[in-house]
Amino acid sequence: MHLVDVRIEKDLYEANDALAAENADRLRAHGVLGIDLLGAIGSGKTALIERLAPLLVERGLRAGAIAGDVYGDDDYRRIAALGIPAVNVNTGKECHLDAHLVDHGLDDLPLDEIDVLFIENVGNMVCPTDFALGAARRMVVVSSTEGDDVVNKHPMIFRSSSIGVINKVDLADLVGADLDRMERDMRRYNPEIRVFRTNLKTGEGVGPLLDAVLG
Amino acid sequence: MHLVDVRIEKDLYEANDALAAENADRLRAHGVLGIDLLGAIGSGKTALIERLAPLLVERGLRAGAIAGDVYGDDDYRRIAALGIPAVNVNTGKECHLDAHLVDHGLDDLPLDEIDVLFIENVGNMVCPTDFALGAARRMVVVSSTEGDDVVNKHPMIFRSSSIGVINKVDLADLVGADLDRMERDMRRYNPEIRVFRTNLKTGEGVGPLLDAVLG
Repeated sequence: MHLVDVRIEKDLYEANDALAAENADRLRAHGVLGIDLLGAIGSGKTALIERLAPLLVERGLRAGAIAGDVYGDDDYRRIAALGIPAVNVNTGKECHLDAHLVDHGLDDLPLDEIDVLFIENVGNMVCPTDFALGAARRMVVVSSTEGDDVVNKHPMIFRSSSIGVINKVDLADLVGADLDRMERDMRRYNPEIRVFRTNLKTGEGVGPLLDAVLG
Repeated sequence: MHLVDVRIEKDLYEANDALAAENADRLRAHGVLGIDLLGAIGSGKTALIERLAPLLVERGLRAGAIAGDVYGDDDYRRIAALGIPAVNVNTGKECHLDAHLVDHGLDDLPLDEIDVLFIENVGNMVCPTDFALGAARRMVVVSSTEGDDVVNKHPMIFRSSSIGVINKVDLADLVGADLDRMERDMRRYNPEIRVFRTNLKTGEGVGPLLDAVLG
């Protein structure tokens, strides 16, 4: 039973990786920069899209989004209100997007009218890690209110992300979170990660972050 | 491939349920009330144990805990500092505890010296739902800082919990969270759920919650 499990898991990841490579080709062919946006529930993933989309317009770039959630369309409705192309993808029960779901999401987007596509994953610090989607890079958002041990508890997600965002910096003192510890833990797990501190309620810190998103 | 997947999944749940029933028997035999404690990262699961353990002592009851995390011992160290019997269980990569991990955790606990055992699951609103552990009841903690749409996004976890805690009520205005919406969503998904509002920084609201925990 255990051996069968492992075999199935390997097949699953291989199939996902192959489809992710196809998604990557497709995005490239349409000149779309895909960003896999990760983080816990309520960390600020949707708020980050709300902040970045208008800044992209200022630079003559057009945003689009895939809103991934287990259930419902709360995030999708916020993103659609920005007036950018967006699709809602419900996983039903799974705690992460996979390349197959993103493939279907891409079918429903006008890719030639999008320069930067945010693929907002399910709010989860564990499950999405092993599932490549075809995005050019990964960005992970944590917030001070999750506790300053949140990074230490989740090595894998930081190892696979090139941008780390520490959000809700304004609430750090109130909840007793040590932002320096969070940043230190990110760099310990991934010395290459670029770290940014934001307050997405006000937009503080978003400008420098945009440069990193565009690479 | 898909059919094989489904078959494996069914076997997995059946094996877990059988082991969970054994855990339940074992807890009952030692007179231990097991509580499966669920919620997102940083929602306040560990803080709730920190608040409830001393209140249990006042009632002549002894607490114990299993601290589940993907990685590290941040929660375990906080719980051990309470002076109650506790074990740390790392899942390595899995986003939830299962009955097998809890079985091993029970091996390392002095069950005859524990009246109420908190089984703190991995911080996750999705994965733990389908895995029974052998606890007598489930309690799920959400916090205002996760956004007031956090309940709507996760129907399953509320359907399987008999107690719902809305924590960080003091930050609700600051983050613009509608606590009434959160409570409404909980009752919509589970009309039987008992809902409590807490501020675990001060202990506000914990007394009435304890009565529900002890049932």
